[in-house]
Amino acid sequence: MSDWLRNSWYIAAWDYEVDSAPLARTICGVPVMLYRKLDRSVVAMRDACPHRMLPLSMGMREGDSIRCKYHGLKLGPDGVAEEMPMKSEAVNRRVCAETFIVHERYRFVWIWVGDREKADPALIPDMWPCEKEGWTHDGGYYHVACNYRLMIDNLMDLTHETYVHSGSIGQPEILEAPLQCRVEGSTVWLSRWMPGIDAPPFWRGALKQPGPVDRWQVCQFNLPSLVMIDVGVAPVEAGATLEQHDQGVRGMVIDFMTPESETSHHYFWGMARNFDIDDKGFTARFRSQQGGVFAEDKVILEAQQRAIRDNPDLKLNAYAIDQGGVRARQAIDRAIRQQENA
Amino acid sequence: MSDWLRNSWYIAAWDYEVDSAPLARTICGVPVMLYRKLDRSVVAMRDACPHRMLPLSMGMREGDSIRCKYHGLKLGPDGVAEEMPMKSEAVNRRVCAETFIVHERYRFVWIWVGDREKADPALIPDMWPCEKEGWTHDGGYYHVACNYRLMIDNLMDLTHETYVHSGSIGQPEILEAPLQCRVEGSTVWLSRWMPGIDAPPFWRGALKQPGPVDRWQVCQFNLPSLVMIDVGVAPVEAGATLEQHDQGVRGMVIDFMTPESETSHHYFWGMARNFDIDDKGFTARFRSQQGGVFAEDKVILEAQQRAIRDNPDLKLNAYAIDQGGVRARQAIDRAIRQQENA
Amino acid sequence: MSDWLRNSWYIAAWDYEVDSAPLARTICGVPVMLYRKLDRSVVAMRDACPHRMLPLSMGMREGDSIRCKYHGLKLGPDGVAEEMPMKSEAVNRRVCAETFIVHERYRFVWIWVGDREKADPALIPDMWPCEKEGWTHDGGYYHVACNYRLMIDNLMDLTHETYVHSGSIGQPEILEAPLQCRVEGSTVWLSRWMPGIDAPPFWRGALKQPGPVDRWQVCQFNLPSLVMIDVGVAPVEAGATLEQHDQGVRGMVIDFMTPESETSHHYFWGMARNFDIDDKGFTARFRSQQGGVFAEDKVILEAQQRAIRDNPDLKLNAYAIDQGGVRARQAIDRAIRQQENA
Repeated sequence: MSDWLRNSWYIAAWDYEVDSAPLARTICGVPVMLYRKLDRSVVAMRDACPHRMLPLSMGMREGDSIRCKYHGLKLGPDGVAEEMPMKSEAVNRRVCAETFIVHERYRFVWIWVGDREKADPALIPDMWPCEKEGWTHDGGYYHVACNYRLMIDNLMDLTHETYVHSGSIGQPEILEAPLQCRVEGSTVWLSRWMPGIDAPPFWRGALKQPGPVDRWQVCQFNLPSLVMIDVGVAPVEAGATLEQHDQGVRGMVIDFMTPESETSHHYFWGMARNFDIDDKGFTARFRSQQGGVFAEDKVILEAQQRAIRDNPDLKLNAYAIDQGGVRARQAIDRAIRQQENA
Repeated sequence: MSDWLRNSWYIAAWDYEVDSAPLARTICGVPVMLYRKLDRSVVAMRDACPHRMLPLSMGMREGDSIRCKYHGLKLGPDGVAEEMPMKSEAVNRRVCAETFIVHERYRFVWIWVGDREKADPALIPDMWPCEKEGWTHDGGYYHVACNYRLMIDNLMDLTHETYVHSGSIGQPEILEAPLQCRVEGSTVWLSRWMPGIDAPPFWRGALKQPGPVDRWQVCQFNLPSLVMIDVGVAPVEAGATLEQHDQGVRGMVIDFMTPESETSHHYFWGMARNFDIDDKGFTARFRSQQGGVFAEDKVILEAQQRAIRDNPDLKLNAYAIDQGGVRARQAIDRAIRQQENA
Repeated sequence: MSDWLRNSWYIAAWDYEVDSAPLARTICGVPVMLYRKLDRSVVAMRDACPHRMLPLSMGMREGDSIRCKYHGLKLGPDGVAEEMPMKSEAVNRRVCAETFIVHERYRFVWIWVGDREKADPALIPDMWPCEKEGWTHDGGYYHVACNYRLMIDNLMDLTHETYVHSGSIGQPEILEAPLQCRVEGSTVWLSRWMPGIDAPPFWRGALKQPGPVDRWQVCQFNLPSLVMIDVGVAPVEAGATLEQHDQGVRGMVIDFMTPESETSHHYFWGMARNFDIDDKGFTARFRSQQGGVFAEDKVILEAQQRAIRDNPDLKLNAYAIDQGGVRARQAIDRAIRQQENA
């Protein structure tokens, strides 16, 4: 069975990562090059010249086209030859590089490397906090040398904060709140509700008022590899519930894992929020803090990937805290099986 | 056929290498972590958390237990779970990491990664000079990127000193002394007796008297991968013989090779001696000299391992000088075959 | 089918690269060591001691022989044992290292790693400009991490100059001259004739006179992997033709690719010329310029090799400009098939 869902949208890049100069990135094992045309729309093409396979990302942009650095074969944004290496040679329009369907949404460039006829933008997972009125969102990109499922496991369980992030965001009280896991189709939720507690400094600062709060953490998994974590606090008197909690300050951590190979992935991380949305320094501060937290996860995840290689006789086990990751992996496996049997 | 004897004691570490913080070391292909309990006894455990396989050596010590750095699963020194990742979860005592039997002797931590029921401490090879009254012993650890048998070959033949160590301890007269090889069961001896010669500076300094000496070098191989080299001089008038030579000054170079992989091993090197035993500077000086000599061997052995990879159509050959190594390899092969057929 | 022609002469080294100290170089997958005897003739031997496989290139030269650095086995220049590791041991003349037939010609050391009985020096490809009266020649050595055929492709097509070497020797007018491809047996010519043009600075300086010139570029491929590029200019009034053009200044770029592995080769590059032959600074200046040009090719070729690995579902395609490389590869494939079926 394949390691990832082939017919699916994956994030190829943040909007700001792609510009007129080509960006090379391997998506689900396929070397891809991305660039923006003059109208700012995005082109995604196999990163190999149809002539002698030199990465096109090494080439020169000309208008909306790309010219290979080796022999000068010029391809249009549709991947089709516009000029042969020897200018005198008649253009053969069957000479072309594979292109991929892309779609920009939620500030991400989405790519479909599976069967083209199935690439329906309506299948892009719902990331409503990224485009909701009154919210703002931003984030960063990291390369991680581990299978993308290990990152899903990591995100669908916030227990590890206590140990991995003991030096940063970990807090023992999180462990005490009961976990609730819920599955509906291929969506998995893992929720923690902490009623009437004292808000930690980050949330107190966001809320800007004293008094006991209700606090929540809701991890939500969606195919193919999205984890959104709904976090925030509301004053107790506002009567927030797990179902309805827009009364206070609320953020959504956005995590998307795009497979690169079976032992590495691209990690797109962001934070959407409905507070301090005009604070231009928020993202810079948060990004810097998150960079440190992420560095702690990266050490763990890459060591875990190496341990899997070095202990071929052992297998990963799952306990109660892993139910979120287990359900997410089951959803992925079911979807892959369905696609492979279709 | 396996490359090493599975049911056997191997040295995992020098006594001083293991302390309360975990030490990670792969023994015969198995990732292991070692630490000392409060009573200073040694624990050896598979270096992979039974939960999500993170190396336990990255974890935190608590009392005599270890807590995984990822989700905080806490394992006792017997490898059995004492606390689950989510504290509220009932402890499942079937959750456990594999532990290995260890035994401290001769200042080494011995480990048994084979079948537990066969781990009899009486099978630890006899290294009497390491615990004999009137003797002292110390040494160091090196990692070598070659198969452990190549080091056994190297040690069971002192001819190479002339060439490999031409810049340090090599001496042409060693080549002139006749070699005697003797096998008894799985023990192999290779002896050189040099009667009535002038003592080289090192031994003259140890003996602290003038006059001609008898000099000996006796390499002794024992399963699974021990080479002890009995070296020393005695005044001619003392009447020492190959069988009995405790009349002068005597040292025993201790070499033990623990396989890490098929192309690397852990080399434990030491020197036991019955002279200058209160000279605290001896080990420091000797270690520094030995470090230089060993660096010469390491260059050769690792080049040899690469040459074996690069010349797959060739094979190692053995001449008269190699009889020690040949017999030692035969003893290893016989023992492995016996174990595999048992 | 093998990737290279086994029974063939290959260049092992420039004459100046081989001296009394051994040079290690893997030729067609075979580790070889080369050195010069006292009479300056060249010895080529498998770079592995017949005893314990240590690379002989790590050894010590003694007279015309080599002594292994490990145990001192001494081999004559014929590869046969002259002294065993233990001097007292009788020399066994069946102990020997494989030697290879070498032949010096055109300032190169040629080696034959195939069947010895077929090693006829008459089969060395004709490189007449390297020994013609009135000509001089010199050059350098580079290691390139790509299959040798990718370099042949590169050299049998000068179109790439425009793009790869846009910063150095590329010139758009080269693209406008029509290409002529001719095949005769296993020789392939690719010619460009540029009549009545203005000489570029390099050739104007060589010619030392004003006025319009005829310019030519003729790439010639010969088995197993030689590409000579005949370049030069002659005053229009001299009446040079593609068939006969010795009227002006003429150079021959000499390129020979010796396979190291399937993804790397040794690139021997030189320039023979019939002008400024007493200018001692010419080679130094040209070498320095060529070094820069070559660095541009190396980036492209090694990226191409990686792209071939990363896009296993794609294959190299050939257009009109590639006819030279295509014909050269066909000649190689035909020759390999003939040898394998013989």
